[in-house]
Amino acid sequence: MSESRSYGRHDIDDEEEEAAFGPSTDLIRAVREALAEDRAAEVETLVLPLHPADMADLLEQLNPDERRRFIVIARGFIEPETLSHLDDLVREEVLELLTPREVAAAVRELDTDDAVDLLQDLDEKAKRRILDAVPAADRAILEEGLTFPEDSAGRLMQRALVAVPMQWTVGETIDFLRAKDDLPDHFYDLFVVDPARTPVGSVPLSRAMRARRSVKLADIMEGGPRTIPATMDQEEAANMFRQYALVSAPVVDDGGRLIGVITVDDIMHVIQAETEEDLMALHGVAETDFHASAFVTAWRRMRWLGVTLVNTIIAAAVISRFQATIEELVALAVLMPIVAAMGGNAGMQVVTVTVRALATRDLTPGSNVWRTVGKEAAIASLNAVLFAVVMGAVAAIWFDRAALGAVLGAALVFNMMWAGLAGTVIPIGLARMNMDPAISAGPFLTTTTDVLGFFSFLGLASLFLL
Amino acid sequence: MSESRSYGRHDIDDEEEEAAFGPSTDLIRAVREALAEDRAAEVETLVLPLHPADMADLLEQLNPDERRRFIVIARGFIEPETLSHLDDLVREEVLELLTPREVAAAVRELDTDDAVDLLQDLDEKAKRRILDAVPAADRAILEEGLTFPEDSAGRLMQRALVAVPMQWTVGETIDFLRAKDDLPDHFYDLFVVDPARTPVGSVPLSRAMRARRSVKLADIMEGGPRTIPATMDQEEAANMFRQYALVSAPVVDDGGRLIGVITVDDIMHVIQAETEEDLMALHGVAETDFHASAFVTAWRRMRWLGVTLVNTIIAAAVISRFQATIEELVALAVLMPIVAAMGGNAGMQVVTVTVRALATRDLTPGSNVWRTVGKEAAIASLNAVLFAVVMGAVAAIWFDRAALGAVLGAALVFNMMWAGLAGTVIPIGLARMNMDPAISAGPFLTTTTDVLGFFSFLGLASLFLL
Repeated sequence: MSESRSYGRHDIDDEEEEAAFGPSTDLIRAVREALAEDRAAEVETLVLPLHPADMADLLEQLNPDERRRFIVIARGFIEPETLSHLDDLVREEVLELLTPREVAAAVRELDTDDAVDLLQDLDEKAKRRILDAVPAADRAILEEGLTFPEDSAGRLMQRALVAVPMQWTVGETIDFLRAKDDLPDHFYDLFVVDPARTPVGSVPLSRAMRARRSVKLADIMEGGPRTIPATMDQEEAANMFRQYALVSAPVVDDGGRLIGVITVDDIMHVIQAETEEDLMALHGVAETDFHASAFVTAWRRMRWLGVTLVNTIIAAAVISRFQATIEELVALAVLMPIVAAMGGNAGMQVVTVTVRALATRDLTPGSNVWRTVGKEAAIASLNAVLFAVVMGAVAAIWFDRAALGAVLGAALVFNMMWAGLAGTVIPIGLARMNMDPAISAGPFLTTTTDVLGFFSFLGLASLFLL
Repeated sequence: MSESRSYGRHDIDDEEEEAAFGPSTDLIRAVREALAEDRAAEVETLVLPLHPADMADLLEQLNPDERRRFIVIARGFIEPETLSHLDDLVREEVLELLTPREVAAAVRELDTDDAVDLLQDLDEKAKRRILDAVPAADRAILEEGLTFPEDSAGRLMQRALVAVPMQWTVGETIDFLRAKDDLPDHFYDLFVVDPARTPVGSVPLSRAMRARRSVKLADIMEGGPRTIPATMDQEEAANMFRQYALVSAPVVDDGGRLIGVITVDDIMHVIQAETEEDLMALHGVAETDFHASAFVTAWRRMRWLGVTLVNTIIAAAVISRFQATIEELVALAVLMPIVAAMGGNAGMQVVTVTVRALATRDLTPGSNVWRTVGKEAAIASLNAVLFAVVMGAVAAIWFDRAALGAVLGAALVFNMMWAGLAGTVIPIGLARMNMDPAISAGPFLTTTTDVLGFFSFLGLASLFLL
């Protein structure tokens, strides 16, 4: 399924092959031209029909100066949802251009999860100023939302939901829904609760809609609803949505009482963000790097390159122990990067697979840790022997010296087998020590494959070739 | 948002901190013990309460021999949905253990998208045998489903859907839904169609449910529904769901007629798979590697390691041109891996960010290509100068030779700036040539940073240090 790919979608040359949605290139160009000459009415006409998500995309495409001009024109009609769709960093910029009163008005209109998401990134002073401009009842809900840990289910949940007592019939429920006016814009399941407000079941709307009015909810509900504790990690909540094909799920407090609902639209973003985060962390980059300023991004990457530098200095120190050996046989300097690179690349393949398997819980305690380690060791052995034979032969012919080929082959076998083993053991070990394997496994691994690669190759060479 | 992480979730040591869902470690252990002694009744009692997705997880955790025993016991009561939840490779194994008649029975019960997904991976003979055992009407639908390109919206869509004419009222619609019995199990939107069956709008169920019976659908529908052509790439469809927070979307044929529906549960899997695929491709591994056999995985990774080997041989050939230089000043051999590694790592950071920006359409033609290239060049310059100064000083002190530090610094500046430029230009260029940047950009880039790193460092050294 994942092997064959369609290549067309990355094509960005042919302008006729425009994306099927989102603001078009032509529209963006027209808005820019109108902004350059401050033709406010034209900008308004161009952007007013846009969906908030498309308006957000447009804002992200503008440069900071154009964004400022845009906000001056659009502050009166820009929809609050546009703010939610903005990338974190562009949003920060836009919020600074609005008054606390304007932001507070937007916050009141948004769903609680989006409002909390918007507030959470602001500094304390800005947050306070905006909260002060919000009516007391709304403020209490927002402040409670902010008490949940970042990246928890509590931050994702929306407070407005549809909860119905279990003795109700379908007819009573429909009448209630028609009469009540502070319901969420969209909802997908009716949550059935007991008198203590504990969820006891859920009824998908499609099922409620097809049942006769006299049918009792208790008779058509799915019992034992999959509740999500407000403190659950958002990645865990996303795994649960995926596993059970959920569209919405009830969120409960410590006492098991229904306090909110998470809907699948937020989960789609979590799935993408968590998957990207894990895999980008392997290269020391962050999901937000694309929109961050050059300075912020440079600083963030610098730390990781600093780790790389320390790693390579350690490897260089290993090489420096063998300077006499290299002086005598300079072919070693030519071949030694091959041993290190093959080990590093083979190891990173294993790390990548292991990190994802841990995150998606394909790799779990007790059952399959040893099987995974064993399988990767087997793969490593196969590839190690193959590449050792091939590269050993190449080196023997290249430098016309069979023993040199043999030493290179032996070092390759040693380093690639180590890479296969370490590629599983390091991430699993880091996870057991409660460290994030995605962030730390890469540098750990390549340091070991560099050091062992140079040490084994140069060490064997000094023993057998001189 | 993505910077702070909760580390607890990767913890797999503490068995009390069991996952909040899925088959428990204890259950898996109990099933294994019962299977080992062929206690069929006990296995049935243990697994019967499981959700199909959990049953699939359990099957994935068993080894092939245990799976065989399990199927012998469970073939009578295993739910068809379990097959859909299985990883591709485990599913292949399980399907081989079932008779064509059993598979055909499962296929008939599944939604069309799941049935097509199940059939598509089988070889022609097996597919034929199963299709022959399916009634003609179902067979025609499945065969049509298989004609859509792999990874297209057509493969994801389900045929059963709710389409209603625009002159209907809410009351008529509810009566229709109550009377009709071949509706999909779950649906979230009513698709309003014109007499030619072209979608003209959609009504979310929550809105239909809250409207009075006399209200006309045409008055509450969202017009200009976001339709998905059956040939659209699934990643594009997923981007559209994310962008507009869709829960279901109508799929249309070439003539714009409604032929199916895609629901968000399938999209969640697409988002995860496409994101993983892009980022794992950077290391030459596939999403399915975790469950594939050691031989299949070894073969797949071998190809990529072969590319790495060719790259490093090219780099070695560059070094070999400078053997005389290295013989004269062996410190060069000690320091040269640093130049290559820093360039390679800095470049891979940029490639990772660029590949994802292309896939999510954050990076699009016309508008922001040059801004992105410029920003990455600025970041690269900042980091290049910083690390050149630091490492140049270290080298000058280490080998007590200022000129050596200067040469190392100059080579680092050169290689890291190249890395920053190539990290954007290579993926964008590959995309323009309709090649997949995720698969090819990594090897391309590291070959250039290795070659240029060694060449610039050793070349400058031979010019200025000897």
